[in-house]
Formats: sequence, C-alpha cells, structure tokens
Amino acid sequence: MYRTHTCGQLRISDVGKTVVLAGWVQKARKMGGMTFIDLRDRYGITQLVASDSASHELNEAALGLGREYVIKAAGTVAERSSKNPKMPTGDIEIILSSIEILNKSEVPPFTIEDVSDGGEELRARYRYLDLRRNPLKNALMLRHRIAHEVRNYLDEQGFLEIETPYLIKSTPEGARDFVVPSRMNPGQFYALPQSPQTFKQLLMVAGYDRYFQIVRCFRDEDLRADRQPEFTQIDCEMSFVEQEDVLVTFEGMMKRLFKAIHNIDIKEVPRMSWADAMDNYGSDKPDIRFGMTIKDVTAMMQGKGFPVFDSAQYVGGIAVPGCASYTRKQLDELTEWVKRPQVGAKGLVYIKLNEDGSVKSSVDKFYTPECLKEVADTMGAAKGDLVLLLCGPRRKTQTMLGVLRIEMGQRLGLRNPFDFAPLWVCDFPLLEWDDETNRFYAMHHPFTAPKPAHLDKFYSNEKADLEQVCADAYDFVLNGTELGGGSIRIHDSKVQARMFEILGFSKEDAEYKFGFIMNAFKFGAPPHGGLAFGFDRVCALFGGQETIRDYIAFPKNNQGRDVMIDAPSYIDDVQMDELMIRSTAPRQDNA
Amino acid sequence: MYRTHTCGQLRISDVGKTVVLAGWVQKARKMGGMTFIDLRDRYGITQLVASDSASHELNEAALGLGREYVIKAAGTVAERSSKNPKMPTGDIEIILSSIEILNKSEVPPFTIEDVSDGGEELRARYRYLDLRRNPLKNALMLRHRIAHEVRNYLDEQGFLEIETPYLIKSTPEGARDFVVPSRMNPGQFYALPQSPQTFKQLLMVAGYDRYFQIVRCFRDEDLRADRQPEFTQIDCEMSFVEQEDVLVTFEGMMKRLFKAIHNIDIKEVPRMSWADAMDNYGSDKPDIRFGMTIKDVTAMMQGKGFPVFDSAQYVGGIAVPGCASYTRKQLDELTEWVKRPQVGAKGLVYIKLNEDGSVKSSVDKFYTPECLKEVADTMGAAKGDLVLLLCGPRRKTQTMLGVLRIEMGQRLGLRNPFDFAPLWVCDFPLLEWDDETNRFYAMHHPFTAPKPAHLDKFYSNEKADLEQVCADAYDFVLNGTELGGGSIRIHDSKVQARMFEILGFSKEDAEYKFGFIMNAFKFGAPPHGGLAFGFDRVCALFGGQETIRDYIAFPKNNQGRDVMIDAPSYIDDVQMDELMIRSTAPRQDNA
Repeated sequence: MYRTHTCGQLRISDVGKTVVLAGWVQKARKMGGMTFIDLRDRYGITQLVASDSASHELNEAALGLGREYVIKAAGTVAERSSKNPKMPTGDIEIILSSIEILNKSEVPPFTIEDVSDGGEELRARYRYLDLRRNPLKNALMLRHRIAHEVRNYLDEQGFLEIETPYLIKSTPEGARDFVVPSRMNPGQFYALPQSPQTFKQLLMVAGYDRYFQIVRCFRDEDLRADRQPEFTQIDCEMSFVEQEDVLVTFEGMMKRLFKAIHNIDIKEVPRMSWADAMDNYGSDKPDIRFGMTIKDVTAMMQGKGFPVFDSAQYVGGIAVPGCASYTRKQLDELTEWVKRPQVGAKGLVYIKLNEDGSVKSSVDKFYTPECLKEVADTMGAAKGDLVLLLCGPRRKTQTMLGVLRIEMGQRLGLRNPFDFAPLWVCDFPLLEWDDETNRFYAMHHPFTAPKPAHLDKFYSNEKADLEQVCADAYDFVLNGTELGGGSIRIHDSKVQARMFEILGFSKEDAEYKFGFIMNAFKFGAPPHGGLAFGFDRVCALFGGQETIRDYIAFPKNNQGRDVMIDAPSYIDDVQMDELMIRSTAPRQDNA
Repeated sequence: MYRTHTCGQLRISDVGKTVVLAGWVQKARKMGGMTFIDLRDRYGITQLVASDSASHELNEAALGLGREYVIKAAGTVAERSSKNPKMPTGDIEIILSSIEILNKSEVPPFTIEDVSDGGEELRARYRYLDLRRNPLKNALMLRHRIAHEVRNYLDEQGFLEIETPYLIKSTPEGARDFVVPSRMNPGQFYALPQSPQTFKQLLMVAGYDRYFQIVRCFRDEDLRADRQPEFTQIDCEMSFVEQEDVLVTFEGMMKRLFKAIHNIDIKEVPRMSWADAMDNYGSDKPDIRFGMTIKDVTAMMQGKGFPVFDSAQYVGGIAVPGCASYTRKQLDELTEWVKRPQVGAKGLVYIKLNEDGSVKSSVDKFYTPECLKEVADTMGAAKGDLVLLLCGPRRKTQTMLGVLRIEMGQRLGLRNPFDFAPLWVCDFPLLEWDDETNRFYAMHHPFTAPKPAHLDKFYSNEKADLEQVCADAYDFVLNGTELGGGSIRIHDSKVQARMFEILGFSKEDAEYKFGFIMNAFKFGAPPHGGLAFGFDRVCALFGGQETIRDYIAFPKNNQGRDVMIDAPSYIDDVQMDELMIRSTAPRQDNA
C-alpha cells in the first residue's frame, strides 16, 4: 500500500491519525534541528516534518531528498504551530516516522513552480515535467470537467455519442488532408478526417436524430500561431430541426458550462446578423464586452475637398473613450500600427474631442469644426474621446477598423478574460467569391443549405445574385473568438448537386468525392442541421487564456513537431517497401 | 416546427391531443376505406390513419407514400380499437389531418426490418440504411450507454480523461504502424498510435495519478475475421498502486456495467493464475460458464503399450456430459474436426462411459476397462459421458483441448451469451521465447514489470531462468473472450534498460525508439500500472454478440476497406508531390 491519503486531503480534523502519503518532493529545507519537506501530488501539497527528536536515520534520509524525488512517507497528523491559511492543508503537518524513496530524480532542467524559469522550447522537450506545474495541471483538469459536463448535458438531451472512422477518404476541398498509405490496398491512401461532417450527415440519414462526438480532427495546414495539426471538436448534429432548435439546444449547453465552471448565469445569448457584425464591429466574431462600435460617416466626410476620403468607397471610424489626450507621438505610433501589413491601412485620421469642447483633427484644413463635431456625435463620442477614421473599400475598411477596435479595447483594459460575453452570429452569406481562382467557395462548407427564401437566387447564374444568397448558418462567438459554428444542411440531393455545380465541381468530380453522400440523400434524408465547437479553444477561453497549447496534454510546435518524442521521424525502408511508397525528400537529420 | 413528439412517445393518456410527428414510412397499407401508415424514428413506431372520412387529398397523399419516405404528419391521438400490446405505442393511433412529404426515397436495396433480406456486402455498401435497422440501432445505443457509464464511474473515482496525440512516432515493435507522411518535415512520418501506452506512462510521470481515455487505436495487421484496423480502447493508468488496487478499481467498473446494463449483481470476480488457466482450460481466456475442465492423465495412460501416448510429453482430456451416445459417424466427424489445421491435433482418442456401466474406447486393445474407468473417474465423468483425449507437447495439447472444450460446450448449449462469467487471469509469464527469430518477446509489452520476487531471474542470462519470470500482469476475461488486460509497469529506468536488453534492442535502438520514456523515468517516475479494455468487444459481449462489426457505426471489411465511402482510394499526384512521396504500386481500379 503506497498511501492512505492524498497530499491535498488532510485537515485539522485528521489530527492524531497515522497516515501514509506518496508524492514528489517539492522542496526540503532544514530549520533549526528540524527538516521540513513539502510533498506534492495532483491533489495538493502537505508539509512533512522530521523533528529533531526523530531518529538519526530519518533525519539523514530527509536531508538527502532532492527535488522531485518520489517518496512514500508515514507519520502522524499534527496541528501546525504556524498555520498557512493559503494552503487547504495549511493547518496540519505530518510528523514523520519513516521515509522510503520510491524513485530518485535527476535535477529537473527547470523549476516546477507556477512560474517556471524554463523557456518554452525546453519545457516542451520535457513536457512531462512541465505538466507537473499547477497552471497546466489546472488546465487539463478543467478540460476533463468541461468534457464531462458537455457529455452529461447532451446525454440528458437525448444525444448519442457515436464514433465515426478516422481512416476515411481524401476529398481535397478546403484544407489539406493528412493521408495514410494502405498496405493492403497498394497505391491507395486513407485520409484522416478534417471533421466527421459527412459521417454525421449519414447518421442523420440513418435516423440517429441527435448525434454528438468529442472527436479528434486533422488539418495539414501551414501552422499559424496557436493552430495544431490535430485538434478536438465537439461535433453535433440533429434531425427534424430548424435553426432555432439548434441555437436553443447549444445555448443551453453553453449556459450549463458557464454555470458549472464559473457559477455564472447567462440569461440569453444575443444574436446578430453577419452583416450587422461586419458593419458595427468589422468582424464576423465581434467582441461585445465593450462598445466602441464602428460608424459609417462616408456621406458626412465626402465632398469637403479631402481627396483621400472623396475617392474612397467608405469612410468609417470608432470613438475611443478618454484618449483625446493622446500625444503626437502616441498618434504617430498608432498610425504606424494600422499601417503594418497585419492591419494594412494606408493611413489614420483622428479627431480629438478635447475636454474644453474644442476639436482638433489631422484633417482640420478640409473640415469645419462643426462638421468634425457632427462626425464625433455620430460616433457617440463624448468630451475627452478620440475618434479614429479609416477609409477604403467597405468590408476591407470595416475589418481594419475591427482590428483597431480590438487593439484599443485591449489597451484600455476592456477585455477582462473572466468577463464572458457570448453571442450568436447568424445569416452568413452562403458563398464567397475568390478573385484569384475566379470561382465561388462555400463560406461554411458545401453541405450548408441556402435559406429557403433565397432558393431563386441560388438557381440563378448571375454572380451578383449568388453573392446575395444567405445560409441558415450560425457561429457561436465568445469574447471575440469563434468557438463554434454550424448550419442547417442540404438534405435534397438536387440542391446538393446544384451546390457542387456552383462550386465548380464537374459531375464526375462530385460523384467521385461525394457520390456516397449524394446517393444516401436519395433514400429519405431528413431535414437536419448541426454545429461543431472547437473544444481546445472552448477550454482555453473558459480558463481565461487565449492560447490553446496549455490545454492540450501533448501539443505540437509550429513546425508540427512533437519535440518530446521527436516526431515525425524517418521510418525504415522495410516499412516503406511494405507500403509501396518511396520518399523523394533528401534525408536530413534534424536536431 | 417538424414535430411535437417522437414516434415512441405517445400513450393512451395522450388521447385527444393534437400532435405533429416526423419520421420514415415503415409501411403504408390500405384496409377497407382506410390507409394505415407505420411511421418510424429512432424512438419507435406510431400508427397513423387516414380514415375514409378524411379528405380525398389526404387519402391520395397517404396512398402515394413509398417505403422510407420522410414525412411530417399532423393529427389527433385516438385510442385504437384493436390494440397491439407488443408496441409501446400500441394503444393509440394518430387520426391524420395532414401529411407533408419532407423527402422521397428510392426503393431501398434491402428491407429495413430486424431480419433483412440484404446480403452482408450490400448492407455494408448502404451502411446508412442498414443502420436504420433495430439490431444495429440498439447496438449503437448500447455502445453510447456503456461509454457514458464508464465515464461516470471513472470520473467518480477521480480519474481524469486526458487526450493523447494521434500523430506520434513510429516504433516498429509488435504490430505494424499506420504511418502519415509529414509535409512540413519532408521525408519524415508520423505514426498512428497502436495504443497510448507511452503517453499514459508519461502522464503518470507527470503526476496525473488516475488517467483514462476512451480512445481510437490503429494496427496495420492482416485482418483476421472480426479485427478492425481502427478500434477503440478504454485506456486506464494509475500511480502509487499495486496489482490489487488496479483489479479492485476495474472490477468495480465492470460490476457497475453489469448492474446498469443487465441489472445483474456480480459479487466477486474470481481470479485464476495463467498456469492454472492453461492446465485446466487450455486457454489464457477460459470460458468458465461451464466445467468440462482438462485433466492430465499422462501417468495413467503411459506404459501400457500404446505407442502414440507412450511417446507423448502429455496426455490429457475432457469429459463431455451425455455424449456417450455419439455414433461412429459423429466420432469420426469430431476426429476430423480436431485434425483441421485450425486445431491441429493428429488424432482423437475417446472413452465412452455407457449407461450400463461398460466402457468402450478407441484404444480398447491397449487398456483394461479398469484403467479406462480410472481415467474417466479422473475426468469426473459420469455414466453416459464421453471422454476425449489428445496427446502431444504439453501446452500445445492443452490448447487443442481448450479449443475442443469450447466446441463441445457450444454444441451442448452451455454458452448462453446472456450468462456472464467474468474472470481475472493473473501471473502471466513476462517473456515468450520465439524459436523462429531466436529471441524473447514481451508477452504483454516491453513496459510490463517483472514480479519483484523474480528480479534475480530477470537479471540472469539463462534462458530457462528468464522463461520463469512472472509479471504482475492481468487479463479481464468474459465468457472466453479477453476484454482487457494490463500490468504493473516498470518505473525504474535501469529495469527498463534491462528489459530492452533482454528483448534484443541495441542501446542505440532503444534510445532511438524509447529514449524519451527512459529519459522521463530519470525524473521521478512513480510506481504505476494500468490496463486497457477493448471497447468494441466490451460492447459486443454486453450485447450478447461475438462479432464487433455491428457495434461500430462505420466498420471496415476484411480488406480494410470502407465500401460505403470507397476508401482507401487513389490521391492526386499534386498531393503526393507536396508530401514528397511516390507510389511504387501499379494503379489498379478496383470495383
């Protein structure tokens, strides 16, 4: 028997008990004739004491303990003379009767503390040690708890968790697939799923009207910061539903999570159309924790002789509270900031609404103070506020203003990660035109249904008509991050065929890639819809973090490598021969 | 709104309510002036009636419905005049006021009934239709329920579900890995995990002392019947435990499942050593629902002049109840049966213990009736029983007798799938010698710890010593099927290094393949152990089936193909170029 209690369990009421604990030595220190050991496990830390009256052997053993040694310690629970109210076990300590070293430890390459002295790369290499630190332990425990809450909620709602296959068929549309050569079918490949989309729709055809799965998905993308080649989705689908049914069901799930995790009662999740989100927030995932909404002042600003604005499709801006005091230097820095390629503006116009009622602007020579005040009024600016204006093509400029708005909200401390402002964004366009490839892409995915009222335009051959088709598609947004999204799906094989036609698939192509699902739709597909949440991101946001890496036990780095196990790696020629493949890459040994 | 109720919901107490149902037309039939429709969804079947007093349009619409059409039907709940006590909704029917066809269906290629007229291949191709049938629906619902029970039990026991990566490193030991070429690391490959073994051990090093995961695993094996290239495990690991702690914890889990699923109270799961299982049942996964145990009669049968037995290492047999009446033809058939390569015996000796007290044997000329009776007594045979004897090398012959025992139990109807007889098999040998490759293999896996009492022999260089080393390894067996297994692991890096040495890994090889885990063990690895259950098989056995295919939503066939989506498949040259691989297989278009 290794332990009678965990290191987080003993309280003042346990005083006098004989106990055995096991765990890791957080630290051992000598004070006077006594040796104090902080013993740590997943559940907490308990103080062990080898008193000066203890045997010589015990004192020697206690003194010999290094950081992260694994020990088994027996003793008696005693009340501490100087209690530590910050620790749940802070009222007691264990007067040791024996210590047994279960395993020694080399000195860890970084400190196992809440804030470690190890760099990111080093900690990644020794992930199993980094995972001993409280922030990561709490992240993984939160993840477990969220998954468990989600499953209980969905089970109560009559959903079935059904596992879909990981070895599926490559359908090169959208992101790149990871592929898996098949030894038994030489020359052929499986693909790892980017999502179980088609399988969950087939489950709807099969009559499983409430499906979910917490499931790994795979995308072979060039990894931007905070993207992982494998990630986890809460994937859901329902039959015989309209958009409203889906929103109500999953709003219920998120409310349950807010209550269970943060004891927050969310009354109702507001809804916003995609067009309003773009117009007012310059983003399809608005952060509504703060105002500072975007206003269109094109009409007001044009025809006054300022050529930059006069030639622009759109002039819009935001009013930043309390920033009229910005210095020249600060405004220059802000101008440079919006001109960075990540934002892409050509310049920035400001209007200061001074405390004394005067206005000061970078375009004073073109506009009267009255005109500038009117603009500021439109923005809802008060005395002391700073109005920032950008111009250019409408959606593009709104997007830049959206980025600027987030930046100013951040600078003003309006984005407390433990304020939670969920939002549904609805009524997305069905299609997006891409000038480069000169074709439409599905904004959500090719299985999203056009709104029934827009079916006429969906069958039109005019680009302008098709651009106006909206979908019953929706995103769940939290604090400026898209946590999930979904849509009502096409359940009519003719509508699906038309969709593939619009997306430029030849009949043969559509048949080869999606024949099985179009075929399935011929045998009584019910109306259905669903959504998927990015589970890693849900966990991170509920944990008050923006990056997902700490919420994944064994993440990959930006090169898609697991530096702990050193994967990917070269494989034997025998393996490749069996798979009937050859590598054309020159072999390089990497660190 | 598509429905107010499901098709399994309405009862006599709902009579008079106006309702809307949606589902699939199971059948529509005309009787007198009325049309009856059986409407089906996941929850059941409800009878709809278009009465002769209904409008002409409604009657026409009802008559036009084909099998598997998806409809929405409104009407009023009425009491049936002829009730159907076999259906939960059999007391009522819906007097229709309207029908709307939501989607038509082509005539399905086979009947959607509990017993279908479709062959296996056809049903696999249209899996989404096969999944509409009750046996498969019940299988997937059972699977959901078992997973949910398992998660609740383990959560209550303080286990954390932690997801481990699917893109890992290839370690060619044991079964073949599926590999995934990395585009970002040209020439290198990820492997899909055969199990999360090393990751769960790293989680123990990281201090997460109770881990579990219901997780997909992958093995590129030549598929025997009822093996899948991807399968699901309930994977578990605990720290600071001895074998007893693991057994008690997971016995608790199985008891919980038996209670929740079948309302069966399992008192205690018996335990049997591997050696006893082999000696008495000729199997490391004994079916203990019936007796007919194997007895060693080598001493009794040798030295009596029968050369076949005299030259054998071992003679053993079983007593088959009530089969003394077997005819010559039946005995010949049984002899042929044991001589099939699947069993591999050279011949079969029988002793009939006739009802009149006489004995009759195929080796009468070598043995006295007294001797044969003594043998029969040793077997525990009664009058009317048939003793069957085999001889040869000890373990091999016991194994053949084990196969024969199962066959006879099957023929005698002693293997009711809804009788449940769980069992722990313990004390497995640590190592297995393979004559072909002239080396030891790990019987369980290379991370299994030798029993502490056997450490001396573990460090011996004598083959005979190493063969005697036992492990703290254990299997959970149900009705002759291994449902799970595990062991106490090595947590000492020196013991692990010795294990790799015994298995014939060079230092470099061990370092390359398992360096990260041996390294991890240097930083305070706790004593730990765990196990994994084959989840597909758990579901099948709880469902009373031996084959797992019905318990997997989208299984693959014996060639590893998903014939519904037609995967694996050929991929674009562009994809291969990006991955810097080439196929050396000639392209063949398969059906």
